[in-house]
Amino acid sequence: MSAANGKIAPIHVEIAENLAPASSPAGFKMFNRILDWITNERLQLINITDRINEIVRKSGIRDGIVHLQSLHTTTAVFINEWQDALLHDVRAFLEDLVRRESYFRHNDPTYSDCERKNADSHLRGMIMGQTLCLQVRNSAVLLGTWQSIILAEFDGPRSRSMSIQVSGV
Amino acid sequence: MSAANGKIAPIHVEIAENLAPASSPAGFKMFNRILDWITNERLQLINITDRINEIVRKSGIRDGIVHLQSLHTTTAVFINEWQDALLHDVRAFLEDLVRRESYFRHNDPTYSDCERKNADSHLRGMIMGQTLCLQVRNSAVLLGTWQSIILAEFDGPRSRSMSIQVSGV
Amino acid sequence: MSAANGKIAPIHVEIAENLAPASSPAGFKMFNRILDWITNERLQLINITDRINEIVRKSGIRDGIVHLQSLHTTTAVFINEWQDALLHDVRAFLEDLVRRESYFRHNDPTYSDCERKNADSHLRGMIMGQTLCLQVRNSAVLLGTWQSIILAEFDGPRSRSMSIQVSGV
Repeated sequence: MSAANGKIAPIHVEIAENLAPASSPAGFKMFNRILDWITNERLQLINITDRINEIVRKSGIRDGIVHLQSLHTTTAVFINEWQDALLHDVRAFLEDLVRRESYFRHNDPTYSDCERKNADSHLRGMIMGQTLCLQVRNSAVLLGTWQSIILAEFDGPRSRSMSIQVSGV
Repeated sequence: MSAANGKIAPIHVEIAENLAPASSPAGFKMFNRILDWITNERLQLINITDRINEIVRKSGIRDGIVHLQSLHTTTAVFINEWQDALLHDVRAFLEDLVRRESYFRHNDPTYSDCERKNADSHLRGMIMGQTLCLQVRNSAVLLGTWQSIILAEFDGPRSRSMSIQVSGV
Repeated sequence: MSAANGKIAPIHVEIAENLAPASSPAGFKMFNRILDWITNERLQLINITDRINEIVRKSGIRDGIVHLQSLHTTTAVFINEWQDALLHDVRAFLEDLVRRESYFRHNDPTYSDCERKNADSHLRGMIMGQTLCLQVRNSAVLLGTWQSIILAEFDGPRSRSMSIQVSGV
């Protein structure tokens, strides 16, 4: 049930958009990649820290910014500690903050043609945010000891894409 | 009542700060603009996607970052699907998350000289955030199929300004 | 009790990581610093605007981006007005949004080895976010009249570090 208990095997499909970093003579470089995941739960948390670090290493950029942007309104990307018990609490908190069984116009055929009944997913994605900007230092994502980068699926199972941009020197 | 029902006619006043992008010989460029809106509801949602894309096109920057920063604590900028029924749910959710009629010291003359009684607006702005960073790819803002950029007014009617910075190559 | 009532005396320890900005011939520059604070309350709000502006001035960067990243999951950084009465409301709102006394697995020895019982701190940090990206204009952080940069401690007293990166021209 938890994202950390081994049940989740997201498939990472990396699409090579740029084979070489777009570098400028003066040292400013930019590097773009799309990462894909297949999720298998409605509300699922995925630790994407290693995948992001892999892209940062490939970029050849030593110091700068890595920008993550999930391309789906019913997902989010954020930081927290990756611990089983806490991930359980995170799921419970988000499910309680926006109750799936509440009345939403987005789920009501009178007002909406959305058949997924996913208003709760939209509101969770909106409040947590679909973008994250982190520093790159010494060719790695800068993270505190307990900080992991978490992709949250709020309307799975789905195929999900995230665009990653590394820029700097 | 909804931001999508045609009642809202935000006035966009673009202030040309830099007539030419501040380009460097090596290709790193930066482009800044201020956009203004006149809002006409207390809690109002405005789809600003087209305006942001217009600025990105003008910047001449092909790949990079566009940073949006609303200059007001009682506003927010975030991503969600732009659908009437869902926008109704977004408004209801934010109004419920922070109840205007709750007791707040900020609204209490004993503690505060604020005459707007807008503590709820401050808390909504704080939790949703006043900045948003998005990728620029191929001279356009990178957005998923259902992602729109939304400016939220939480204490209108007011005149509101957003600073937009495009940087990259 | 409030962060603005003079009881808080955060100790700012600036670590000079780079004595000179890492500049490129073409003008793109990057400047990194770590700031430290000793907090003295469990939930404490600290106005860090002046310290961030000091770093921006030192960077020698006129226009660009300043990126703030707190290195701790049980902290947050965000924008709001710095007013005593409102800060009281902010604290009350965050304490109510995540009730410390609720049951959390992260605080339960059956599920977790965390002895700090700080699940509430994690959830508050997660929802408010540990990163903030702001524009730099004319060698200062761009902020609206009522916007202050606030570091929130959610599990103090502790020693806390923030990494600040200024980039631009």
